[in-house]
Amino acid sequence: MSGRTGRRPGNPETREAILTAARTAFAARGFDAASIRAIAGAAGVDPALVHHYFGSKDKLFLAAMNAPIDPGRLLPGVLDGDPERIGERLVRAFLAVWDSPAGMAGVALLRSAVTTEWTARLLREFLVTQVLRRVLQHLDADPAELPLRGSLAAAQMGGLVLMRYVIRLEPLASTPPETLVTAIGPGVQRYLTGPLDGVFPG
Amino acid sequence: MSGRTGRRPGNPETREAILTAARTAFAARGFDAASIRAIAGAAGVDPALVHHYFGSKDKLFLAAMNAPIDPGRLLPGVLDGDPERIGERLVRAFLAVWDSPAGMAGVALLRSAVTTEWTARLLREFLVTQVLRRVLQHLDADPAELPLRGSLAAAQMGGLVLMRYVIRLEPLASTPPETLVTAIGPGVQRYLTGPLDGVFPG
Repeated sequence: MSGRTGRRPGNPETREAILTAARTAFAARGFDAASIRAIAGAAGVDPALVHHYFGSKDKLFLAAMNAPIDPGRLLPGVLDGDPERIGERLVRAFLAVWDSPAGMAGVALLRSAVTTEWTARLLREFLVTQVLRRVLQHLDADPAELPLRGSLAAAQMGGLVLMRYVIRLEPLASTPPETLVTAIGPGVQRYLTGPLDGVFPG
Repeated sequence: MSGRTGRRPGNPETREAILTAARTAFAARGFDAASIRAIAGAAGVDPALVHHYFGSKDKLFLAAMNAPIDPGRLLPGVLDGDPERIGERLVRAFLAVWDSPAGMAGVALLRSAVTTEWTARLLREFLVTQVLRRVLQHLDADPAELPLRGSLAAAQMGGLVLMRYVIRLEPLASTPPETLVTAIGPGVQRYLTGPLDGVFPG
């Protein structure tokens, strides 16, 4: 775990107190408004200790929500390359993560987000600040269109996860990943950069 | 409730015994293999009584899984009309149901399916036998391609529900339905009847 989320060793009780304060702060105020200073205060520790244990606000957030992967490490390789094939590369990278052991942690996270509003908020913050923000700032599209384009892509990817890994609808659940990249990649690409006639006013 | 699922009045204990036996049978054997005769036997009642209370195996199944709608009544109006715009009509009808009071029951059903394998099985059977079977037999596509085409459309629609109604990702959650029909309808249409180059062998 420590390699993936950048956690460092430390007093387990102190770490847990920081994580509890972080979960509360991120769920209540959102990622951007929650400050490391306030989280440290709520946990009764010095802000420097939070930095020492977790490295950055991004990493603290990933640890607090038990994120199975760090999009900040995964996404650069997906976003580099032909901008017209980002959809394919996103679906391919996504399936590689969900088909790996991290996918089980992902299913657990989705289950929790679907049943508790508190985890749903953290998942929303995760999608917006850790995934969509990075993907969207890479796209050559009208900035006013980006939030809805990102939501549409997230709905497509979320539905793939829901039906393939959670509901396990066949034949989707046992279709080879590259077949799904070919089938779904262009759909994601259309949402991200393609013409969406009639969707945006003007 | 009775209008939507075609239930008829009867001894509540007998009805509940039938529903319990039906849930077990449908989850264990699937919709097609589960027989009304066997369900009646497990409930200790005459098969004629099951027909009397529930009308048909479809209706018994919908009652057993607390389905918020009866696709057998909703889908004919969606499937009739220009076959090249089935995707749009599906998304439109889907959003109308999920934006209505039935949508709350739908969210409850999805929450249950995501957390318990037993409900996930019933939801799979529901999707395949009550929704996809009806939609796919209406399409002019290679029969060998239909199961995956149906799965892909289900993933798109499932993701829309997950992100709009359960995770409530913005701006998707507050986008007007007709904007989503315009954005997502063509994607569903492509999965159902469009060219999916490289997806199917040969």
